[in-house]
Amino acid sequence: MDRAEDYPALPGLDEDAPRDEWAAAYQRIRADTEALAAPLAIEDYVIQAADEASPAKWHLAHVSWYFETFVLREYLPGYTEFDPAYRVLFNSYYEQVGAYHPRPARGFLARPTVADVYHYRAHVDGHMLALLAERRDRPWPEILERIAIGLNHEQQHQELLLTDIKRNFAANPLRPAYRSNLPMPPSGKRAPVDWQEFPGGLVEIGHAGGSFAYDNERPRHRVWLDPFRLASRPVTNGEYLAFMESGGYASPALWLSDGWARVRQEGWSGPLYWERIEGIWWQFTLAGMRPLDPDAPVAHVSYYEADAYARWAGRRLPTEAEWEVAAADEPIVGNLREGGYLQPIAARPGDGLRQLYGDVWEHTASAYLPYPGFSPPPGALGEYNGKFMCGQMVLRGGSCVTPPGHLRATYRNFFYPHERWQFQGLRLAEDGE
Amino acid sequence: MDRAEDYPALPGLDEDAPRDEWAAAYQRIRADTEALAAPLAIEDYVIQAADEASPAKWHLAHVSWYFETFVLREYLPGYTEFDPAYRVLFNSYYEQVGAYHPRPARGFLARPTVADVYHYRAHVDGHMLALLAERRDRPWPEILERIAIGLNHEQQHQELLLTDIKRNFAANPLRPAYRSNLPMPPSGKRAPVDWQEFPGGLVEIGHAGGSFAYDNERPRHRVWLDPFRLASRPVTNGEYLAFMESGGYASPALWLSDGWARVRQEGWSGPLYWERIEGIWWQFTLAGMRPLDPDAPVAHVSYYEADAYARWAGRRLPTEAEWEVAAADEPIVGNLREGGYLQPIAARPGDGLRQLYGDVWEHTASAYLPYPGFSPPPGALGEYNGKFMCGQMVLRGGSCVTPPGHLRATYRNFFYPHERWQFQGLRLAEDGE
Amino acid sequence: MDRAEDYPALPGLDEDAPRDEWAAAYQRIRADTEALAAPLAIEDYVIQAADEASPAKWHLAHVSWYFETFVLREYLPGYTEFDPAYRVLFNSYYEQVGAYHPRPARGFLARPTVADVYHYRAHVDGHMLALLAERRDRPWPEILERIAIGLNHEQQHQELLLTDIKRNFAANPLRPAYRSNLPMPPSGKRAPVDWQEFPGGLVEIGHAGGSFAYDNERPRHRVWLDPFRLASRPVTNGEYLAFMESGGYASPALWLSDGWARVRQEGWSGPLYWERIEGIWWQFTLAGMRPLDPDAPVAHVSYYEADAYARWAGRRLPTEAEWEVAAADEPIVGNLREGGYLQPIAARPGDGLRQLYGDVWEHTASAYLPYPGFSPPPGALGEYNGKFMCGQMVLRGGSCVTPPGHLRATYRNFFYPHERWQFQGLRLAEDGE
Amino acid sequence: MDRAEDYPALPGLDEDAPRDEWAAAYQRIRADTEALAAPLAIEDYVIQAADEASPAKWHLAHVSWYFETFVLREYLPGYTEFDPAYRVLFNSYYEQVGAYHPRPARGFLARPTVADVYHYRAHVDGHMLALLAERRDRPWPEILERIAIGLNHEQQHQELLLTDIKRNFAANPLRPAYRSNLPMPPSGKRAPVDWQEFPGGLVEIGHAGGSFAYDNERPRHRVWLDPFRLASRPVTNGEYLAFMESGGYASPALWLSDGWARVRQEGWSGPLYWERIEGIWWQFTLAGMRPLDPDAPVAHVSYYEADAYARWAGRRLPTEAEWEVAAADEPIVGNLREGGYLQPIAARPGDGLRQLYGDVWEHTASAYLPYPGFSPPPGALGEYNGKFMCGQMVLRGGSCVTPPGHLRATYRNFFYPHERWQFQGLRLAEDGE
Repeated sequence: MDRAEDYPALPGLDEDAPRDEWAAAYQRIRADTEALAAPLAIEDYVIQAADEASPAKWHLAHVSWYFETFVLREYLPGYTEFDPAYRVLFNSYYEQVGAYHPRPARGFLARPTVADVYHYRAHVDGHMLALLAERRDRPWPEILERIAIGLNHEQQHQELLLTDIKRNFAANPLRPAYRSNLPMPPSGKRAPVDWQEFPGGLVEIGHAGGSFAYDNERPRHRVWLDPFRLASRPVTNGEYLAFMESGGYASPALWLSDGWARVRQEGWSGPLYWERIEGIWWQFTLAGMRPLDPDAPVAHVSYYEADAYARWAGRRLPTEAEWEVAAADEPIVGNLREGGYLQPIAARPGDGLRQLYGDVWEHTASAYLPYPGFSPPPGALGEYNGKFMCGQMVLRGGSCVTPPGHLRATYRNFFYPHERWQFQGLRLAEDGE
Repeated sequence: MDRAEDYPALPGLDEDAPRDEWAAAYQRIRADTEALAAPLAIEDYVIQAADEASPAKWHLAHVSWYFETFVLREYLPGYTEFDPAYRVLFNSYYEQVGAYHPRPARGFLARPTVADVYHYRAHVDGHMLALLAERRDRPWPEILERIAIGLNHEQQHQELLLTDIKRNFAANPLRPAYRSNLPMPPSGKRAPVDWQEFPGGLVEIGHAGGSFAYDNERPRHRVWLDPFRLASRPVTNGEYLAFMESGGYASPALWLSDGWARVRQEGWSGPLYWERIEGIWWQFTLAGMRPLDPDAPVAHVSYYEADAYARWAGRRLPTEAEWEVAAADEPIVGNLREGGYLQPIAARPGDGLRQLYGDVWEHTASAYLPYPGFSPPPGALGEYNGKFMCGQMVLRGGSCVTPPGHLRATYRNFFYPHERWQFQGLRLAEDGE
Repeated sequence: MDRAEDYPALPGLDEDAPRDEWAAAYQRIRADTEALAAPLAIEDYVIQAADEASPAKWHLAHVSWYFETFVLREYLPGYTEFDPAYRVLFNSYYEQVGAYHPRPARGFLARPTVADVYHYRAHVDGHMLALLAERRDRPWPEILERIAIGLNHEQQHQELLLTDIKRNFAANPLRPAYRSNLPMPPSGKRAPVDWQEFPGGLVEIGHAGGSFAYDNERPRHRVWLDPFRLASRPVTNGEYLAFMESGGYASPALWLSDGWARVRQEGWSGPLYWERIEGIWWQFTLAGMRPLDPDAPVAHVSYYEADAYARWAGRRLPTEAEWEVAAADEPIVGNLREGGYLQPIAARPGDGLRQLYGDVWEHTASAYLPYPGFSPPPGALGEYNGKFMCGQMVLRGGSCVTPPGHLRATYRNFFYPHERWQFQGLRLAEDGE
Repeated sequence: MDRAEDYPALPGLDEDAPRDEWAAAYQRIRADTEALAAPLAIEDYVIQAADEASPAKWHLAHVSWYFETFVLREYLPGYTEFDPAYRVLFNSYYEQVGAYHPRPARGFLARPTVADVYHYRAHVDGHMLALLAERRDRPWPEILERIAIGLNHEQQHQELLLTDIKRNFAANPLRPAYRSNLPMPPSGKRAPVDWQEFPGGLVEIGHAGGSFAYDNERPRHRVWLDPFRLASRPVTNGEYLAFMESGGYASPALWLSDGWARVRQEGWSGPLYWERIEGIWWQFTLAGMRPLDPDAPVAHVSYYEADAYARWAGRRLPTEAEWEVAAADEPIVGNLREGGYLQPIAARPGDGLRQLYGDVWEHTASAYLPYPGFSPPPGALGEYNGKFMCGQMVLRGGSCVTPPGHLRATYRNFFYPHERWQFQGLRLAEDGE
C-alpha cells in the first residue's frame, strides 16, 4: 500500500530552493510517465475511442508542450522549439496561447510518430535541465512555481493516461489488457459500514501557506457546517448491485431529472465497464476482464448514479467541505497507483474512516465553483482551472491510479455529472445531531 | 409601480383558515391567467417556436391539470376527470404521475382546441370551488398546502406565459406584438452606480415559519459570508453595449469554457432579442420592436454572458446568500408585472439598493443545490423542485413580468447557464473589507 | 367512383383561348382548396408536426403567393402586393425569387392569422380575375401557361393539404379526425391477383403535344423495354401483413442497405399509421382510427419497404417506363379524391389492370432523373421540378386524395426513398418472356 | 503509362483452369497490397479520420477475412480460423455472415496490431495456396469464381487503401506525405477540348460472356440512345477554377437542391483538398502539398459539384450507357496506379477520346440501379453490390490509383452524390443531332 509520505515532496519555491533537487524531481516525474507507457504497443499510443479520452501519445507530448510553452519559451533565452507546429497540435485548450487542434480529432494524428514524441520529450528535458542548472540570475520563484505546476500537471496526465487507456481499450471487442499480470487483490473479510460523527461548526477549508497547491484550492476560507456523519468506507460493488437488482435504473423517482434523461438516452443499466456474461458479472480492468469483486468500492459511476444510489439508500452525498474537514487530519495513504493494483480493492478491517485516499474519487454534492476571493493567475495559466467553474461537480480523495505524492486534503477534482470514465465512486453521508 | 403589499396575500394554511378567502384567492389568480391570455388570437395559443417555450394553450391547461391531479382526484370524492387523455397531455414532467407528452411536441397539438381548454378550466374551477365550500371534515391543512402550491405554480406559469409568448412571437419575421399599446417607460436621468457595503459574518438564509414558501427555500440555515459590496442597480443596456463594443464576444479569455463554446456554436454577438437595423439597436419586446433604452437594465443574457461581463468589468456576480442577506429587509416593490411595462425600465434616482425586485431576474454565482437538510415532500409533488438540483444556476428578485404577491427575499429561481429567454439580467458585486 | 373525364379540363393555352373559361377554371380550383379546408378548426391550420408536413395555413397562402409572384407581379401593371413580407414567408424554395422562411419553422408562425390568409386569397383572386378580364394586349400564351402551372400547383397542394393534415393530426395522442363522417368502403369479394403481359420493345414515353404537362414529363422519347408482366392490382394490407408476420422487418437480407439502416434507426415494424391495439390492427385515417381492411391496398410504405416486400415476394417493382406503357391506354378513373373515401379501398372484381389510378401512388424502380433532352424553363420557374432530380424515386398513378382532372399517364411524382407520409403503395412486376 | 494489357489477366473459371496460374495470380495481387502498405509507419495503419475512410490495417485484414469467410471456411475441410473474433471485427457489412464492428469505430482498434494482421494474412495465404494445390475433387468453378471475386475485391481495397490514406493524412495539420518522392508530372502543352460525336441508336451495354465481371455489370441488355457528343478529355483544374471564380459556389440556380443544401452545410467553396495559401492554390496529394496544375483533370468533386459545373458550362454529364458505348472499343490504358503518379495528370495532345481510363473516376448522370434482369447470387455474397442500389450515382473509367488489370468498359463504380474523397472528376457531354 502506497504511503504518500514515502514519495519525495517537491522542494520549496523560494529564491534559494535547491535547484538540483528540482532537477531530480523533474527527472523522477518525467520518468514515471514513460514507465507508465512502457507496456504499450505503438498502435496503442494512437487511438482515441471517445472525445474525452485522448491518445497516449497526445498525453506524452502535451505535458512536454506545457514546459516548452510556459517555461522554456519564456525563461530560456534562445530556446528553439522542437517543431513550431506542435504549438497548435499539443495545446489542450489555452485560448490565450493561440489555436489548438480540436479535442475529438486527436485520434486522427498518426504523425508525429511515437518515436518523434519521445524525441520531443528528450529535447524538452535537455533544455529544462539546462535551465535548472543555470548559474545566472533569473526570477526563480516564478520559474519554480511554473515548474511545480508543470510537474503536478504531468502527474494529472499520468492518471489520465491510465484512465484513457482503459477507456480506449474498452472500445475493442477483444478487451485487451494494458498489463495482464496485475496482482489480484488480497481476499479478506467484508468490512461493515459504521458512521463517523463530526460536529461541524464554523470551520476553515482550502489551502493556506506557501507549499504548492492549485489556484482552485485557494484561498482558505470559513464555512459553516451543521453536524454530519460520514460512512467509514465507500459504497461497494455488492451494495451497488443491490441497488441495480432492486430496479434502481428503472425508477425515475430516484433520479435527478437530467440523470434520468441520461439513463434513457444512453441506455445505462449499471456502471461503466460492467458486463454480465452468462449470468456472472465481470468488469473490464487494466488487466482485461476480471470477475466483479463484491467487496471492492464501486467505480465508474457518474454523479447522477451516485446521487440516485444515495437517495435509494436514504442517505446523501457529502459536501466537499464536509469531506475536507473529515480528511484534514488523516494520513494520505491508500490504494494509490504505486500500490500496483490499478483497480479499487476491498477495505481491510479497521477503525475510523478508511479509503479516504485512493481506490475511487469520491463524488461530493458540491458544484465546482470558485472559493470566495478566488482569483486565477494572470495570462494563459489562469485558464488552467478557473474557466471550468461551471456545470461540473467536485470529487475528492484520489483513486487507484493517482500518482504518489500528488494529493492533498484540499485537492479538488471535477467532472461533468454524466461522466464516468474516471475511477469515480461514492461515500455516503447523513445529517448529524 | 407595483407594491407587492397591495396584492392580497394567500390566507393561512391551518385547520381554521377562512375557506372563502381561499376561494377568492383562487378565483383572483385564475382570472389573472385568463386576463393575460386575452390579447391572444386563437392561432397565438398553439405555437411553440423552441423546445423551452410552451404554447400558451398548454400553460392554461397544465395549471388546471395540477389542481385536477393533486387536489381534485385526491380529495374530492366522486370527481370525474374532464378528459382522461389530459392526464398525459398536460403532465409536464411528473414521472410518478405516469407518462407525459414530450415537451418539444407540445406545439404539435391542435386539439384540444382553445375553447376546449377554457371549458377544462371552467370544469376544474367549478369543482375546486365546490371542494372549498365543503362543510365536511377534510384534511384541510394538507389540501390548502396543495392549493397554495397550485396557485403559486399558476403564477409561475403566468410569468412563463409572457416569456414564452415573447419567445414564440420572436421567431416570426413579422415581429408581431403581444400588446402594441404598452406604455413607453418614463424618461429620466441616468442613475450612476454606487456600491452598498455589507459586513457579512455568520448569517441565516432560507425561509422559516409557517407562511407559504417552496420546499427549495427551506430550511433556514447558517452561512458564513465575508464582507461584500453590491452595486446599487443592475447593469444597463448602455453598459452592456460598451462590453460588446470592446470586443467582449470575441475575447475567449473573458469566458467560461462552456460559455465560449456556446458563443461560437450559437453565433452569439449580443443579448437575445437585440437587432441592429441600419446602425441603430432595437430590441424585440412584448410590444413589438422598440429602440434600445441605454438606461434600462440589460435583459435576456445567459449566465455565461453575465459572468463574462462581470469579469470584463473587474467585478463578480453575487452569491445567492449575499443577495438574500442584502434583500432581506427591503420592501418587495419594483417594476413587476402590474406596473404594466412588461419590459425592464431605467432606475429612478435614489439611494440604497434599487431594482432588487422586478425588472430582471438577477444572475447569482450560486449553483442550484439543495440547502443543508433539504428534503422534498413525498410522492409526485416532491418532483416539483428537487429533481432539478443539478447543472442550473440560481437567479433572484423577479422581473418585469413576475406576478404581484409572488416574490419573497428567499425565492430561488433557476435556469441552465446557457438559457436566456427569460428576463435575465445581472447586478455586480465585489469583495468588501 | 371518380371519373376524371367528368371534371372539366383546363382550356387551351393559345392566344385565342377563352379567358372566361380560364376564369371559371381558376375559381373552381381555388374554391376546391377552400372547401377542403372547411372542416378545420382555426388551431388545425397552424401546426406542423414534422419538417415535411406544412401547416394548412401555409399551403393556402403559398399557392396564392405563386399567382402573386409569377403572374400578378409580372403581368398586371400597378399591382400592389398584399403584404411585402409574404414574399419571404410564403416562398417555398425558389432561390431566384429571394430569401425564404425555413421549412421546419413554418409551424412557428401564428401570424398572419387564418383570417389574414383568407383575405390574402381574396386579394389575389380579385386581381387574377381582373387580369383575365383584361381587354388589352398581353402575352396571353405565356400568361396562361403560368396560370396553368399555378392551377396544377394548387391541385398538388390540395393533395398535400390532406396528407399533411393526416401527418400533423397523427402526432396527437387524441388521434383527431379531419372528417369523422367519411364513408366506410363497400365490402366486397377479395380480388385475386393475375398477371398482365406486355411485350415491351422500343416504346415511347413522356408527354408530347400542346396540352398542359409539367416540364419533367418532357420530352417524349424512346426507351427499350424487355417483355414484362404487371400485377393486376396493388399489394393489399393483408398481403403486407403476411410479410410482416414472416419477419420481414427483422430480415436484413431483404433490404437495401440504406433501408435496413432506416429500419433500425426509426424502429420501423410496419407501415406508418398502423397501430396494434389489444391484438387488432388499426390504422389512422382522415376519419380517425379505423380497423385495417385486409383487402385495401397497403399505403404509407416507403420505397425501402416496397422494395423489401417485392424481394420477399420474389418479384420486383416496375420501372416508370413499364408503368407508363401499361397505363397509356387506360382510362383515368379510380378511387381519387372526389370518390370521397380519402382512403384506399379494396379492388372490385374485374379484368385487366385495376387501380392504376387513385388509391395509392405506386412506387417504381426508377430514380427521378431528367428525361433525355430535358430542359427546364429559364428563371425561377425552372426550379419547380428540375432541381430535385437527384436522390428521389418516381411514383405513378395518383392516390385517393389526388384532385380530379389532375392526372396523366405521363405524370411523375417523386419522393425520397425513406418518406412515407404520402399515400404510397406498390404494384408488383416481373420479367416476361 | 500503364497498359492494362501488360498486367496478366486472371485465368479462366472453368473446371480445368490451371490452378498454378491461379496461385500465381493470388500471390501477385496479395503482394501488391503489401507493397502499397510498405511506406506506412505503424501509426499510419491505425487511424480513421472520417467515417468513410477505414484504417489501412483494417483494409489489410478485411480482404483476408473475405478469403477466410467465403473460401476457406466453406471449401477447405478442417480449416481453423486465425482468430474467431475476426469474424466480427473484419466483416464490413455482410448481414448474413453475422454481426460486424461498426464502421465509424474501426479507428478505435489498436489491436490486433499491425504485426498480428500480417500474421493473419500469412495464415490465410498459406491455406489458400494449400487449397489451390489440392488434388482432390472440389467444385472448382464455384471456388474459382469466389477467388476471382476475392482478388478483384482486394484490388478495390488497394484503391481504397490509397484514397483512405489520403483522406486520413489530410486531417493532420502537418499534411504528411504517403510517399514524398512521387514523380512530378511531365509538363506539356495544354490540350484543347474537342467534341466526339456518337450516333446512339439501339445499343447494348453490360457484361456478357464467361470472363470475370461483377454481378452489377450484368446482364448485357439493350438501351436506346439519342445521338450525343462527349468531350475529348475531362474538365481540368483550370476550367474548374474559372467556375469557382465566376461565383459558382454562391449561385444556387446552378445547383441541385440537395447539392446547394450541402454547399451551405459543409461550407464548400472548392474541391476537397484544395487550399489557397497566400494567393496561390495548392492541393494535398499523396506526396504532400503540391501546387495546383491547371491542366490536370479536376479531382475530388462530388456529383453535386460535377452537375453544377456542367450546368454552368451549358453542357451536361453523360449517362453511363453513353460512356460505355463510347469506351467499348477503346484500349484500357491511361494514368492508372502503375503509372506511379498517384495523382491526375494533364492530357497529352492527341486525337479522339483521351483519359477515358485512369486519372479520375468520371461522374455520370445515371443513378446506380440494377440492370434489367439483374439478379444477385444467393447468400451473403449477394450483398456485395446489390444492396447498395439506391441513392448512389454511377462513375466510370477508374482513376490514377486504380490497380492494373482491374478495369473493364462495363465496370460500374458508385458513390453517394455528396462524397468526394475518391478521385472523382467529370467529362462533359451534350446532345447530338
